[in-house]
Amino acid sequence: MTPFYAAADWGTSTFRLWLVSTEGQVIAERNSDQGLAVAATSGFAQILEDHLDALAAPKDLPVMICGMAGARQGWREAPYLSVPAALSDICDNAVEIDGSQRRICILPGVASHDPVTPDVMRGEETSLLGNHADSDTMYLACLPGTHSKWVQIDEGAIVSFSTFMTGELFGLLAKHSILKHAVDGHSQIHRESRYFAEGVKAGYSNPEEITSHLFSIRAGQLLQGRTGQDGYDRLSGLLVGCEIGGARVRFGQTENLRLIASGHLASIYDTAFELLDMPVTTVDAHQAVLDGLGIAARRLFRSHAGSGGGL
Amino acid sequence: MTPFYAAADWGTSTFRLWLVSTEGQVIAERNSDQGLAVAATSGFAQILEDHLDALAAPKDLPVMICGMAGARQGWREAPYLSVPAALSDICDNAVEIDGSQRRICILPGVASHDPVTPDVMRGEETSLLGNHADSDTMYLACLPGTHSKWVQIDEGAIVSFSTFMTGELFGLLAKHSILKHAVDGHSQIHRESRYFAEGVKAGYSNPEEITSHLFSIRAGQLLQGRTGQDGYDRLSGLLVGCEIGGARVRFGQTENLRLIASGHLASIYDTAFELLDMPVTTVDAHQAVLDGLGIAARRLFRSHAGSGGGL
Repeated sequence: MTPFYAAADWGTSTFRLWLVSTEGQVIAERNSDQGLAVAATSGFAQILEDHLDALAAPKDLPVMICGMAGARQGWREAPYLSVPAALSDICDNAVEIDGSQRRICILPGVASHDPVTPDVMRGEETSLLGNHADSDTMYLACLPGTHSKWVQIDEGAIVSFSTFMTGELFGLLAKHSILKHAVDGHSQIHRESRYFAEGVKAGYSNPEEITSHLFSIRAGQLLQGRTGQDGYDRLSGLLVGCEIGGARVRFGQTENLRLIASGHLASIYDTAFELLDMPVTTVDAHQAVLDGLGIAARRLFRSHAGSGGGL
Repeated sequence: MTPFYAAADWGTSTFRLWLVSTEGQVIAERNSDQGLAVAATSGFAQILEDHLDALAAPKDLPVMICGMAGARQGWREAPYLSVPAALSDICDNAVEIDGSQRRICILPGVASHDPVTPDVMRGEETSLLGNHADSDTMYLACLPGTHSKWVQIDEGAIVSFSTFMTGELFGLLAKHSILKHAVDGHSQIHRESRYFAEGVKAGYSNPEEITSHLFSIRAGQLLQGRTGQDGYDRLSGLLVGCEIGGARVRFGQTENLRLIASGHLASIYDTAFELLDMPVTTVDAHQAVLDGLGIAARRLFRSHAGSGGGL
């Protein structure tokens, strides 16, 4: 099969590339840890071309990129759209890399300019574009990660959103705080553990006490002989529960909930929502971002594919 | 003046020693960073004797200690009292170091065995003993720090308490999280800054959104050109406000509030309480712990001082 375009999700710490056919099929895929942190030093163009070469991509194959490559400290700044932002506006505001042999476009992020709680996203807007099937439905999307995003979508637009530092706090607390003595940082979260469940429920019920509940992990080790695995599960549960509880207050509702996540993270959040009796539709995050990049590529690379472009 | 006893506050990261006269006057004082972390390696006895020698303390001068020296991983474990714990019981449950030329006593900490949110303190109970003038009044004490304690006291007993990881989170986030790009970690908090005030109010009003509000520091830098100093002040304000807001929910009231703190920390919390229109009585933390150790020393070292012991 001949590729129609390449799609890249360029995050802070990861890089993911797909070659996609005219029919929308993934022909080949590459993953690496050459995220923004690495690329800012090694050069974005070099990394991209190396991966395209490795997949024997044609020299004129166009590339659609989302994520941190469009940050100010990235490859080329793709200025933020402001909320409320129509998902369809994302494609129209792509920026193009000058002086390249092939067409390379970077999609913009989205910003909320609230004076007290400003917020930004880069990459998640593309997943939302990809996931967005029914443009009239109002829903709340949860995209968990290092910096989890909760996004309210209505009539095909990002109305408001909020970032929760769940993943980053988890890593910091497990490895660098006093909790490291009470948490086995080399473990995997056991989502069927009662300590995970207790954590989710306590974090959700009293998210305002999170900085206090965290310390109970240390006390639980000292007083109740809790193991490092128990502590790890409880830490995860508390932070995830606090995120869901905080989002409930922030958005005033948790109806029509969509979880956009993959792999282990998807199963952790799925379990948390189940424990809290919150119905949720789960969507694969990798597929969603690939679909979003595909929508943008089909719109912007039409000429490249010619009349057979499957539009 | 001849010393009657020595008093030591042995924390996780600091060591503080006083020689006190029969009349209760401080004759000499030593401070060092030989807290638990250092002492567990170098030896508690050696560190203590070195400092006593440096102050030319008599070989039979008794020493009253509180804090982490009494932890399981400390010098000798002084088992926790359980809440509700009468402050007067603290003295009666001191443990004594065997085989020492001088009498050396370590005061116990206090534990809450709540199955879901267990909690522990070591050192703060001694400050509360020292501060405790009027045994019939019910009040809420705030002892800020790496692990801030909020303690409900009634009829001379610790009824319940809660630890907030405010200071530790502040250090971790300022130095090791994505916020480090938006926070000047070498700065001092400007408590008159509008960003400190905004942080205190946002943290207090919506403590359940703390893990989200934190990220707004990064977004504020990207979107609003906030400086590292602004970010530092806001980070401090958010975490202090979240602590006070969480404590308000936890204890259901914030009447009869006592702030037990010293130096810069005292002024930060004083400012926060003022911003929130919460009346508070401020007590010097160093004096409080010294007074607590003094009460214990006078009770337990009576024989040493003879009839002139000022009892």
